[in-house]
Amino acid sequence: MGRWEPNAHERLQHAALELFHERGYDHTTVGDIAARAGLTERTFFRYFTDKREVLFSGANDLAAIIVTAIAAAPTDVAPLDTVVLGLAATAPGFEPRRAYARRRQTLITAHPELHERELIKLAALATAIATSLHHRGLPRPAASLVAETGIALFKHAFERWVDDAKKHDLAHHLQAALAELRVVTAAAARAPRRRARSA
Amino acid sequence: MGRWEPNAHERLQHAALELFHERGYDHTTVGDIAARAGLTERTFFRYFTDKREVLFSGANDLAAIIVTAIAAAPTDVAPLDTVVLGLAATAPGFEPRRAYARRRQTLITAHPELHERELIKLAALATAIATSLHHRGLPRPAASLVAETGIALFKHAFERWVDDAKKHDLAHHLQAALAELRVVTAAAARAPRRRARSA
Repeated sequence: MGRWEPNAHERLQHAALELFHERGYDHTTVGDIAARAGLTERTFFRYFTDKREVLFSGANDLAAIIVTAIAAAPTDVAPLDTVVLGLAATAPGFEPRRAYARRRQTLITAHPELHERELIKLAALATAIATSLHHRGLPRPAASLVAETGIALFKHAFERWVDDAKKHDLAHHLQAALAELRVVTAAAARAPRRRARSA
Repeated sequence: MGRWEPNAHERLQHAALELFHERGYDHTTVGDIAARAGLTERTFFRYFTDKREVLFSGANDLAAIIVTAIAAAPTDVAPLDTVVLGLAATAPGFEPRRAYARRRQTLITAHPELHERELIKLAALATAIATSLHHRGLPRPAASLVAETGIALFKHAFERWVDDAKKHDLAHHLQAALAELRVVTAAAARAPRRRARSA
């Protein structure tokens, strides 16, 4: 019923991050966030289900970008490369937000309830990726494995991107992570097979 | 202060699974579980922090088995194979519990709060694996990537093991998952590189 508030979403997000930084995440309430943004709690809850959600509201947009890029990828690109290509499509959007991403990452690492939410969002992202690979003809179990592996690459690349003094973009770090994965996977082929399959 | 209750842990676990099956997870309380096991709520909370935890109390044992096997692996085994070897060490323990694992998996899939806990436990497992790889000399970032990839293989293998009509053991499914990952990773090398790095 409340009147329309211009940029309420952004104002709330900005206020929340300011307060999390100033007072700590645990000592910031939804009421504090709304007050700092010059809005009501009721308005807050029109945009976010809770305090945590402020940090995760971009997840759906992210999934949409990735899935769209996967759907548009040439069909002769191998599945894991397709996923990396999809993930890399998020790089331009992340690029101007590196400082924000670093602060957000620090918060998430420090708070189990945020870490929890992050894991859930990443699991949902893996499911979305698996579904879009499946639509491209990859059987379900393989699609899930490739999607989960893609998420492992994404987490790895994201952490390196956030702290990269050289300022390479996320797409660069995704390619580097994929190259690294290839090394550990390929190296395995040269390792001796000592294990007796006795069990 | 209560008197010693023989096999309280197992009795509570058994009672909980019975009740989750009979009444549904949501309609089972800690009080119900304790009563069915012939124990008090106080005793329940000596073993488990909450109702969810009944399904996850084996996670620490699991991590210990995996980490021990990784530490004992020959040093010339490649990192990802080392992780698979560590994960495969859990196979004998899982083997007699396939029916239980299948029921547990169904519960987890159906209840977001259980799925959440599962994700947290798997993330903790990935951290434990990364640490043990690091102790074997693998640098931190690579260790995390390999550990996360190992968890992706584990999830994939576990799902297939739970439903395997042919009754192959978990170690078999882990090797199959690793072989599958090698295919998608290696195939990528043959894929054309169409992507322009323009971003």
